[in-house]
Amino acid sequence: MTKYSFLYDYAEGAHPEILKALTETNTIQQLGYGEDEYCLEAAKLIKNIFELPYAEIHFVSGGTQANMTVISSILKPYESVIAAQTGHIAVHEAGAIEFTGHKINTIKTPDGKLTPELIKPVLIEHYDEHMVVPKLVYISNSTELGTIYTKKDLKELSYFCKENNLMLFMDGARLGSSLTSKDQDLTPKNIKDFVDVFYIGGTKNGALAGEAIVLINDNLKEKFRYSMKQKGALLAKSRLFGVQFAVLFKNNLFFDLATYSNKLAYKFAEEITNLGYKFIAEPQTNIIFPVIPDKTVLKLEKKFMFYPWKKYDKNNTTIRLVTSWATKEEKIDEFLEILSKDSHNS
Amino acid sequence: MTKYSFLYDYAEGAHPEILKALTETNTIQQLGYGEDEYCLEAAKLIKNIFELPYAEIHFVSGGTQANMTVISSILKPYESVIAAQTGHIAVHEAGAIEFTGHKINTIKTPDGKLTPELIKPVLIEHYDEHMVVPKLVYISNSTELGTIYTKKDLKELSYFCKENNLMLFMDGARLGSSLTSKDQDLTPKNIKDFVDVFYIGGTKNGALAGEAIVLINDNLKEKFRYSMKQKGALLAKSRLFGVQFAVLFKNNLFFDLATYSNKLAYKFAEEITNLGYKFIAEPQTNIIFPVIPDKTVLKLEKKFMFYPWKKYDKNNTTIRLVTSWATKEEKIDEFLEILSKDSHNS
Amino acid sequence: MTKYSFLYDYAEGAHPEILKALTETNTIQQLGYGEDEYCLEAAKLIKNIFELPYAEIHFVSGGTQANMTVISSILKPYESVIAAQTGHIAVHEAGAIEFTGHKINTIKTPDGKLTPELIKPVLIEHYDEHMVVPKLVYISNSTELGTIYTKKDLKELSYFCKENNLMLFMDGARLGSSLTSKDQDLTPKNIKDFVDVFYIGGTKNGALAGEAIVLINDNLKEKFRYSMKQKGALLAKSRLFGVQFAVLFKNNLFFDLATYSNKLAYKFAEEITNLGYKFIAEPQTNIIFPVIPDKTVLKLEKKFMFYPWKKYDKNNTTIRLVTSWATKEEKIDEFLEILSKDSHNS
Amino acid sequence: MTKYSFLYDYAEGAHPEILKALTETNTIQQLGYGEDEYCLEAAKLIKNIFELPYAEIHFVSGGTQANMTVISSILKPYESVIAAQTGHIAVHEAGAIEFTGHKINTIKTPDGKLTPELIKPVLIEHYDEHMVVPKLVYISNSTELGTIYTKKDLKELSYFCKENNLMLFMDGARLGSSLTSKDQDLTPKNIKDFVDVFYIGGTKNGALAGEAIVLINDNLKEKFRYSMKQKGALLAKSRLFGVQFAVLFKNNLFFDLATYSNKLAYKFAEEITNLGYKFIAEPQTNIIFPVIPDKTVLKLEKKFMFYPWKKYDKNNTTIRLVTSWATKEEKIDEFLEILSKDSHNS
Repeated sequence: MTKYSFLYDYAEGAHPEILKALTETNTIQQLGYGEDEYCLEAAKLIKNIFELPYAEIHFVSGGTQANMTVISSILKPYESVIAAQTGHIAVHEAGAIEFTGHKINTIKTPDGKLTPELIKPVLIEHYDEHMVVPKLVYISNSTELGTIYTKKDLKELSYFCKENNLMLFMDGARLGSSLTSKDQDLTPKNIKDFVDVFYIGGTKNGALAGEAIVLINDNLKEKFRYSMKQKGALLAKSRLFGVQFAVLFKNNLFFDLATYSNKLAYKFAEEITNLGYKFIAEPQTNIIFPVIPDKTVLKLEKKFMFYPWKKYDKNNTTIRLVTSWATKEEKIDEFLEILSKDSHNS
Repeated sequence: MTKYSFLYDYAEGAHPEILKALTETNTIQQLGYGEDEYCLEAAKLIKNIFELPYAEIHFVSGGTQANMTVISSILKPYESVIAAQTGHIAVHEAGAIEFTGHKINTIKTPDGKLTPELIKPVLIEHYDEHMVVPKLVYISNSTELGTIYTKKDLKELSYFCKENNLMLFMDGARLGSSLTSKDQDLTPKNIKDFVDVFYIGGTKNGALAGEAIVLINDNLKEKFRYSMKQKGALLAKSRLFGVQFAVLFKNNLFFDLATYSNKLAYKFAEEITNLGYKFIAEPQTNIIFPVIPDKTVLKLEKKFMFYPWKKYDKNNTTIRLVTSWATKEEKIDEFLEILSKDSHNS
Repeated sequence: MTKYSFLYDYAEGAHPEILKALTETNTIQQLGYGEDEYCLEAAKLIKNIFELPYAEIHFVSGGTQANMTVISSILKPYESVIAAQTGHIAVHEAGAIEFTGHKINTIKTPDGKLTPELIKPVLIEHYDEHMVVPKLVYISNSTELGTIYTKKDLKELSYFCKENNLMLFMDGARLGSSLTSKDQDLTPKNIKDFVDVFYIGGTKNGALAGEAIVLINDNLKEKFRYSMKQKGALLAKSRLFGVQFAVLFKNNLFFDLATYSNKLAYKFAEEITNLGYKFIAEPQTNIIFPVIPDKTVLKLEKKFMFYPWKKYDKNNTTIRLVTSWATKEEKIDEFLEILSKDSHNS
Repeated sequence: MTKYSFLYDYAEGAHPEILKALTETNTIQQLGYGEDEYCLEAAKLIKNIFELPYAEIHFVSGGTQANMTVISSILKPYESVIAAQTGHIAVHEAGAIEFTGHKINTIKTPDGKLTPELIKPVLIEHYDEHMVVPKLVYISNSTELGTIYTKKDLKELSYFCKENNLMLFMDGARLGSSLTSKDQDLTPKNIKDFVDVFYIGGTKNGALAGEAIVLINDNLKEKFRYSMKQKGALLAKSRLFGVQFAVLFKNNLFFDLATYSNKLAYKFAEEITNLGYKFIAEPQTNIIFPVIPDKTVLKLEKKFMFYPWKKYDKNNTTIRLVTSWATKEEKIDEFLEILSKDSHNS
């Protein structure tokens, strides 16, 4: 690619420490299917950091696979999952959840976040056997709009779910960016108090591939490996996941990478704000959504790759910019330079 | 693991050339979801070697994922797939095919291989709308019993399928071991004449993870990436697959690794035969099934890991021994030494 | 039931002519599974009336079964169906469509009716393999709100679907009430020009059970009986459906019953309007939705059964009133009497 | 049909008492979806007769629908159902069970009946997460071969299931013919001790349509109506089923009809035996399988309809003959006359 990419947080390979560890452990014989030493080690590290000694940890190759495996293992055939209209499962999984047989009840939100107030009407509208039974609430943290659920947000949601006999599942494809957000007070140790199950995204935070599913609620643990196998999610050389997650959760690397990624996004956002542009969602993590004049977008596209998100109005477009552990700061500077030339504020 | 493992051909990591290439290409930004340069390069290499300029190549993380994605993309809801009773999809995928909604018509075979004669009765028994419509034949080459489909086998099966309006899908999780078998006359260039779709196994022949699905029949190509996405099989950092398969199919590495693996298995089988033991299936590839006295099995298990396959008779058990690109020849010698001490022939 | 029911159009059994015919034909031996003489006769009558000599007609037991069988037989796994938010498949089928593996893209509408303008954004938002492919448009005629698609409505929608490579499926659970609506210019003979498939509701228009699926588009006909069987929709004693539909479509009974039902609803609506109450949807067929003061609703509920639809505002509730071929006019008068006592207009 | 049919037990309509009751109750308004008075009455009668005061009774339109609804409501996605190779779900439901996502583990049997000895190997072969978990045993009583499970058979099977944590489901499409078999010691009151769920077939014993699902095990009751709705099995005018089953289980009609049907079959079988022909399965109920010379079959086919079941040997074919509550004895005599002319014994 001749243009520099702000398309997503998976344009590069893995953090060098990960490749090093894969190389060093390469010839040691291991059991497969999640029973290798590295998966056990990674699980132990995760249990410690998230203070979840009794959780079950399972590794799968990607987010859609994690979502479809978890959700279909929880729901009975006539039960549904509630999600924001912008939720990954609702839009960007090509119907994977429906393929497993379940309806998604979608809710329009201002910022990609679900709240008790937003969920209540869905519960009220589903009251008899002619309708599905909403049983699970799916949230992404950080969200598809780069926003985060704070401790208070999660607490309220969790309380509401328990009151209403709903399970709560947190898609943490970008959990690192949420937990290290400048606006976040939620810590790894808090999560266990609020959700029944979540997953920790490796792919978008320095791994080659891999998401760690963390089953907290005991009822979800039974024969989960069968569910994984049936969805094609039980990797033969699971060491690939084990080694990576062991590296990520030793010496704080997972959080350091996310912190770096966020830091660059904040700089990015701050400068864009200074240049007089606004955002459609509060820049809280490594995904930001500035509104840029169409003619400037065209100039930027000559040197950079990024997603035009949506037409904002006649002359402006919301674009999506994503930073990662591998983003080069000087490329942000180059981007800002082009932007500043077109800015009224400059 | 303190015991040496002949459990499977995925006890070690990747061939060192693969890790080297992953490291060298690591920081180069790439598109995701199969559109990176390495996937394109690997696809090109595969097309050349298998003489399939118009095929579509897609990479997924494992065999069950490959099978469920391919099979469910071919069949209409009321159509079924025919497989040997020992076929991977029939036994070892935790119902993944049925999960996608399809019946597997299983057929008892002497050696894990399907033939026109074996399939015919299934077609005859399915004649009206109270039954499923068998539409696809699934074969593994090499099979779960280590046997192979030769050119003649495949030709006859292919001809039969065309005559009977059946598609033919070859699961090549161990295609390398089949194509480099001492008994094989089938070449990579022949495959296109016989099957509608097949996949090339990377995991069991030197890759960390990855199978290359090769769509030959044009009717199977439409929107295949949608099917992949829906099954959680579209990897974000697809470079992981692209880089690996590019290495495997440059400089003949894929075939060299399989040849090495087979060679060790032949030595293994020859010596076991010399010691007076027999096999339940002809040793043709890297998986062999000798029949060993129970008391000897117990001795072997103290130093080695391998699967007891099935009780053979009162005092003997069939065991499964698997070699790979990473198997150490001296470990085979150690195994044989124990075996020879118990042998009447020694 | 001691209260008179305006709950739905299936509170009574079958039209007496139907029971008579069932009795008269009862002991004549017939083939099963849709191949009896009466099914053939009914199909012939339907083909004549709807001018569809090449259509395929199949009978199933209910609307949800018709919808799930038709929709799942049309869509590939990654394809979706577009429906109004109020559509029966979207709300009142307990996730039957999702159970068959397909997403429903729902659209908010003012009156339960889809239009090209409403559908366009859904098509625009689905553009790559991370999303489903909308492939089918589902409409109910008459709708769940009692409104109808006229000839012009259907023509525009049909044209739009053809332009956009979408199929069009009309759920005619209440097709009788639509075709005999005072506001309708669509005739039975017009339908073939606009939709790929539709079904004719028997249950809600005088039959004991039974819906007639009419497959117009040749591409939908292949092995449809297999799809039916697989969904449990192929009735052994299909004569039950054949006899009923033959009676309904001989001597215009189907249209006469719907006309009667509509006529009573119009009288109902007119009087309610005269009493000063308004409707949330134009009363066009046998389902009407007046807005009634809560205290009056309580009085009505002492003598009648009907569904409170939704709170309208602080003091008023929208209720649903349904008439049928069996509704007694004097019961409407009794209802109106109570209503008039509370009315400001009276 | 100009030929008399021994094809099946659903060639005629309903028993006259049923049509009479449908007519008498026709205009009485009722609730729908299983909540009408007749369904409640029928459920009460069934509970009394089968001594199951706490069972839940639900009515559906046919056997495949009953099987797919029950089985898919019991099993988790990775769980399977065990059935005889000749079982209705294994062969004659066009993949309905697999469509709901579940594998059927089929077992070869001599007589269509499962036994602990036959099931054991299936349990042994399924031991880890690469395979499905067999969780339910499906039996048909009477079987597809006309044989029956006696009290002893069912007791042994039930005991085995409980020991092995398996559920037991009895498909009673022809339960009447089993319970009234000359060889049967199982009574309606015994069933509760042995199975978790069963259904009582109406269609094949005098009803127009309808099977009564009887949920005994409390764990199976939760939200079963949701499962029914989702499978299209909740009939709007459920009175159709309620009225019929109320008639069948008042005054012993259900058992009288089955007794009549069996009696004619026994006469049929006895005379065929006297003529020197043998049977492939013991004639115990209303379906019998004599082996007839091909040339005689051709003669019989000129006057009668019946299914040729399977070629028996070079010159003989096994045919299937079915009697019902409506079978005319003189037609059996006519059939036997033709047969006797060709018989060596005559």
